[in-house]
Amino acid sequence: MPHIDLPAEIPGIGSAFAFRPETAKPMRELANILLFQPGDHASLPSRDRELIAAFVSSRNTCFFCQTSHGAAAAAHTGGSPELVASVCTDPSTAEISNKLKALLVIAAHVQGDAKSVTPAIIEQARAEGATDLEIHDTVLIAAAFCMYNRYVDGLATWQPRNEAMYATMGKRLATTGYAAPA
Amino acid sequence: MPHIDLPAEIPGIGSAFAFRPETAKPMRELANILLFQPGDHASLPSRDRELIAAFVSSRNTCFFCQTSHGAAAAAHTGGSPELVASVCTDPSTAEISNKLKALLVIAAHVQGDAKSVTPAIIEQARAEGATDLEIHDTVLIAAAFCMYNRYVDGLATWQPRNEAMYATMGKRLATTGYAAPA
Repeated sequence: MPHIDLPAEIPGIGSAFAFRPETAKPMRELANILLFQPGDHASLPSRDRELIAAFVSSRNTCFFCQTSHGAAAAAHTGGSPELVASVCTDPSTAEISNKLKALLVIAAHVQGDAKSVTPAIIEQARAEGATDLEIHDTVLIAAAFCMYNRYVDGLATWQPRNEAMYATMGKRLATTGYAAPA
Repeated sequence: MPHIDLPAEIPGIGSAFAFRPETAKPMRELANILLFQPGDHASLPSRDRELIAAFVSSRNTCFFCQTSHGAAAAAHTGGSPELVASVCTDPSTAEISNKLKALLVIAAHVQGDAKSVTPAIIEQARAEGATDLEIHDTVLIAAAFCMYNRYVDGLATWQPRNEAMYATMGKRLATTGYAAPA
């Protein structure tokens, strides 16, 4: 049961967004930029961004975020539930590019103690072709999910165990992004 | 030295904001709502919100955020560098209300494992007069600083050791908030 009076019928972060629309607006906007509409300057596709989000959420053991962003990653071109599971289990053996593997090493360090990101870890990503913007966005996606995950779990939001619901949500997020519902 | 090519003359999070203005906008807006203009529905004064931000940043050992938000807390009515230091060292013995002490217990749990926030911890804050909105904002400030701190440290931003600079910054933040510079 949620720690505060959140709308009972809305799962996960949506219930907290409904409780406080003022803070929901920039939080949705940030997710939309980082995960859905990276724009011309960014080369990481949304599938890879969602994989970083699902991976960090799994490290933070946030069921709602891991499952919803995993479903979004699976719904994007080149995604699948099996790929998401393998990335969350062990990125080093997953069927992803060496660049994404190197970026996930950065994300793992940011999720723990961000000061443990060393120049050598950054150089490894660069050697695999990562740009400054991709490194920036990886650090910020990992940092942002340390916020979203804590928000969802710190309020004890309702996180139903309903596979079909998350699959539907993932398709919606992969298609329409994170802008507020009309 | 920063891990990516950030503007050399801007300290801390400002350099990352300059590098990626698209994500800076919602991040500034979120800080402004949570710390500076809580609005009619919120009763926690900015000094207390900045104390929560400085406290969480000290737990995450983020020098830039701890020092700048500590300076902002000190610059608000009822704030002082001594009060900030005592809150960051041990909130239970600081000269603050029992309500704020109870909210800082929530913040400490969110900063660690957010799932460790128990109904008993929430009830303690309620017994001291905390509202649902104050509990919500405490959880979100603590969660958000787990993002800002990791962003600042994960990019290895420049964090000068310059007391006067932070005092000036704190006064500016306490006066004009977090909207983008004109």
